[in-house]
Amino acid sequence: MEFSSKLLERAVNEMSQLPGIGKRTALRLVLHMLRQPKEQTTALSEALQTMRNDVKFCKSCHNISDVELCEICSNPNRIENTICVVEDVRDVMAIENTSSYKGLYHVLGGKISPMDGIGPHDLNVESLVKKVKEGKVKELIFALSSTMEGDTTNFYIYKQIQDYEILTSTIARGISVGDELEYADEITLGRSIINRIPFETSLKL
Amino acid sequence: MEFSSKLLERAVNEMSQLPGIGKRTALRLVLHMLRQPKEQTTALSEALQTMRNDVKFCKSCHNISDVELCEICSNPNRIENTICVVEDVRDVMAIENTSSYKGLYHVLGGKISPMDGIGPHDLNVESLVKKVKEGKVKELIFALSSTMEGDTTNFYIYKQIQDYEILTSTIARGISVGDELEYADEITLGRSIINRIPFETSLKL
Ligand SMILES: [Zn+2]
Ligand SMILES: [Zn+2]
Repeated sequence: MEFSSKLLERAVNEMSQLPGIGKRTALRLVLHMLRQPKEQTTALSEALQTMRNDVKFCKSCHNISDVELCEICSNPNRIENTICVVEDVRDVMAIENTSSYKGLYHVLGGKISPMDGIGPHDLNVESLVKKVKEGKVKELIFALSSTMEGDTTNFYIYKQIQDYEILTSTIARGISVGDELEYADEITLGRSIINRIPFETSLKL
Repeated sequence: MEFSSKLLERAVNEMSQLPGIGKRTALRLVLHMLRQPKEQTTALSEALQTMRNDVKFCKSCHNISDVELCEICSNPNRIENTICVVEDVRDVMAIENTSSYKGLYHVLGGKISPMDGIGPHDLNVESLVKKVKEGKVKELIFALSSTMEGDTTNFYIYKQIQDYEILTSTIARGISVGDELEYADEITLGRSIINRIPFETSLKL
């Protein structure tokens, strides 16, 4: 791509560092900014920089937070001895959105992935194990994605805490509500049969 | 979407102002920035703001340029009385990329679109007509997209300059090189038959 302006080229190059944004998309976005008032680009730039420089993570659950202890951890109505282990902030948002969970979270910040050079020490595993050891946990719910990395991470954590008397569970896998059986992948379909629930229980959901 | 941090929410909101970037994509991009060094976000923010504040447009063809007269307009090897009329900077880049055009450009900055409130006076039409009136143009090539807005814009400009003795042409429409006829839309296929060229001529392309 040949640019008629170095300023334009630099903006496109920086923009295309973002995942899923190629050079063409970056150019389209940058040209859009040129057609909008300057204030809009200023607002975007400042929001990104302030966020990147001033963002904090909850000292207990590692969720993104503007205060030391996040709103979930500091809410007296949440069940504090039940902890849902998730990969990142988006998972907390997704589960909170269902309004079906009243415990706390623990954000690992990723999954163990030797291929990407991510080991347990790059994640918030130690602080989770510490909570268990200190007797603060009654139930641990694993809610990582069901990939090889997710399973590896679950198992690594499980090994550290298996000698403590706590409940451990993983979220149910199965056919999405409203989905046709014939389009489901076979692993999901298989798990949903193995982990079937009593019909009477399903009526109450 | 419920955010655990105002800083995060503001960054996502600003990011999702960009066309084609929804809230989910914006969140994914912003969380990616948090995993990268701070310097990367700083570089992106600065590149966007500098570009937006300091960008210049060529005083002759209105292409984006870091100097008063762009590299194409100031190149003595270009044919200066042949002008290709395009919608935006991306079209200049696309045509330059083919290395098949040696004339100059005129960047309109958009198309006439009453639906979007864009009239001729929002575009660089006047300076184009002026070039024709001053006898600086021998051939005008219309290279706008073949939409209703593109056709309207072509016709509006044509009406202003039809009394001057210049050549006008539009770029050829047809089946893309390498494309199967059966997948072409019928309008394109129809045009490619009506505007067929002598076989001997095609051999020389
Ligand atoms: Zn917290
Ligand atoms: Zn120029």
